[in-house]
Amino acid sequence: MINVLFAARPERWPLYETPLTEAFAEAGLQVHLATDIPAEMVDYIIYAPNSPLQDFTPYTRAKAVLNLWAGVEGIVNNPTLHIPLCRMVDMALTQGMVEWVTGHVLRHHLGMDAHILAQPGEWAPKAPPVAWDRKVTVLGLGELGTACAQSLARIGFDTHGWARSEKTVEGVTCHTDLSEALTGAGGVVLLLPDTPATTQIMNAGTFAKLAPGAFLLNPGRGPLIDDDALLDALNSGQLSHATLDTFRTEPLPQGHPFWHHAGITVTPHIASETRPKWSARTIADNIRRNESGAPLLHLVDRSRGY
Amino acid sequence: MINVLFAARPERWPLYETPLTEAFAEAGLQVHLATDIPAEMVDYIIYAPNSPLQDFTPYTRAKAVLNLWAGVEGIVNNPTLHIPLCRMVDMALTQGMVEWVTGHVLRHHLGMDAHILAQPGEWAPKAPPVAWDRKVTVLGLGELGTACAQSLARIGFDTHGWARSEKTVEGVTCHTDLSEALTGAGGVVLLLPDTPATTQIMNAGTFAKLAPGAFLLNPGRGPLIDDDALLDALNSGQLSHATLDTFRTEPLPQGHPFWHHAGITVTPHIASETRPKWSARTIADNIRRNESGAPLLHLVDRSRGY
Repeated sequence: MINVLFAARPERWPLYETPLTEAFAEAGLQVHLATDIPAEMVDYIIYAPNSPLQDFTPYTRAKAVLNLWAGVEGIVNNPTLHIPLCRMVDMALTQGMVEWVTGHVLRHHLGMDAHILAQPGEWAPKAPPVAWDRKVTVLGLGELGTACAQSLARIGFDTHGWARSEKTVEGVTCHTDLSEALTGAGGVVLLLPDTPATTQIMNAGTFAKLAPGAFLLNPGRGPLIDDDALLDALNSGQLSHATLDTFRTEPLPQGHPFWHHAGITVTPHIASETRPKWSARTIADNIRRNESGAPLLHLVDRSRGY
Repeated sequence: MINVLFAARPERWPLYETPLTEAFAEAGLQVHLATDIPAEMVDYIIYAPNSPLQDFTPYTRAKAVLNLWAGVEGIVNNPTLHIPLCRMVDMALTQGMVEWVTGHVLRHHLGMDAHILAQPGEWAPKAPPVAWDRKVTVLGLGELGTACAQSLARIGFDTHGWARSEKTVEGVTCHTDLSEALTGAGGVVLLLPDTPATTQIMNAGTFAKLAPGAFLLNPGRGPLIDDDALLDALNSGQLSHATLDTFRTEPLPQGHPFWHHAGITVTPHIASETRPKWSARTIADNIRRNESGAPLLHLVDRSRGY
C-alpha cells in the first residue's frame, strides 16, 4: 500500500479525489489517498504552491512531491524540501486550447452566431468562403500557438504565424515581420505571453492592417489588446467580432463595456483549464514509474528554479 | 478567343460572372463569356439542368457542356445532346461540409452557446471534457462522411463511423453494427443518403443508445430523423441539442416546431453550398485541358446515366 497525501488546498479535494482514485487503479497501484495521513507515513505528496503545507521536515519517508500545476514558483525555493519535485505537464491543457481556438475560429468563419441567434422562420442561405480563402494569423508560436496553428492548417485555413524569432511550422507561413503577418488577415489569434514588448500589440495601427470584418480571438493575456482601440475597431466594422477569454482584471468586472458590446463574446478564462482526469493520470504515471525504478518525469531542477 | 455561353438560369449570372472571368484569366485562357452568343459561334456551354436551353441542335461547333451541379438528371437523357457532358466535381463542396461539421461538433462539445447567449456579468468557468473523452459517431462513410470523420479524428475526438459495408478509415473506429456505433456516443453526425433503409434511422430506440445529453447534427437529409422522437429526446434531456441543416420540406415552414425549440438550431441548408469561385475553377480547368488536347475530367457516361 502506497500512502499518498493530497496537500493542495482543501477546496480542490472534491475535484481530484475521484479522478486520482481512478487513475491509480488504472495504473495498477494500491494506494491509500487521503488529506490526513500522519507525516511519517507519507510516501508521496500531491501539492499545489498555495498549500498550507510549508514545512516538509516531518515527511521523513516521502519519495517525491508531485505538483498539480505547471508553475512551481511557490515551492521551488522552500528550504525544507530535499526530495524530488515534479511539475505538472498536462497534455490536456494544450489539447483544450487547440479545441477552443479551432472551435471559435470555425464559429466566426462560418458565421454560426447568425443561426444560433436567428429568429424563427429566418431562412437566408449564405455560404461563407471556404477556409482556403481565409487568412488566419496566430501571434505567438510557442507550444500553444504552434499547436493551434497546426490545427487550423490541417482544417485548411490559409494559416500564418508570427514570432520574434524565425520558426518553421508545417503548413503554416511563419513571419518575423508583424505587418506582413497581419496584412489582410480575416482572423487573428493571440497566444503571446504578456511582456513589455507584447503589451497592446493589437492597437489602432495593427487592427487597421486586417481585412475588413476580421475576427479576433484572445485566449492569451488581457494586456495584449488596447481595449479602446478594440471597441473602436468593432464600432467601425473593421472587426466583425472579438471573442475574449483573458482580461486585465478577472473575473471581468460587471460594469465593463466588453460585457455589453454585441460584437464581443466573453468566455471566463476557460480556453486552457486543467482537467483533473488528465492531471491525475500524469501523477499516477509518475508514481508508477518511481515505484518500478524508472526515472521520474518532469523533474524540477531547483538550481535553475524550474 | 474561346466563346463560352453561360446557359444556366439568368439569376445565376451575377453570382458566376466574376468568378468565371477570374478563373479563365488564372487558367491563361482568352475567353468571351456571355449569356447571349449566337448558337453557331459557341465553343463551350456552361449549363444547369433547369436551364431554358433544351435544344442543343443549333450549337454546331460546341465542344462540351459543363454542368454547374453534380447532378445531371435533367440533361443526361436529352436526345439533342451529342457532345461530351461533364458534371461538376467541386472540391469546395466536401471542404465546406468538413468545416460545417467540425465547427458545429466543436461548438456543442465546448458548450459555446452558453457564452454566446450569456448575460452580462455571467462568469462561470466550467471546462468541457477534452475531445479524447467524447465519442462522436458519423453515420455514413461515403465521401463526405469519411472526410468529416477524419477531420474529427485529427482534432482528437474518439471518432466512430458506421456504414453497412466494412470500411477502413484512419483514426476512425468503423462499425457495421449500428447499435455498437451509437452506444455511449456524445455526438452523432448524419451523412447518409435518404433511402428506405435509412429513413428515420434516428428514432426513439436509437436516441436511447446515446450518452445522456448527446448532441445531434443533421447535414444529411431530413427524413433520416423521426421528428417527434427528436423533440421527445430533447425534452427529456437525452439530447442536449440538435443542429439541423436539412429538412423534409425546405425552406423549413414558418410554423414548424423546430423553429421554436430552444434545443434546436436551424441552418438553412448551407452545410455544402457550392462556392462559385471554386466551381468556376473546375470549369476553367476543364476548358484549358480540352483546348490543350488533354482529356476532359468528370465526363458523364450517358449509357449509365451518371
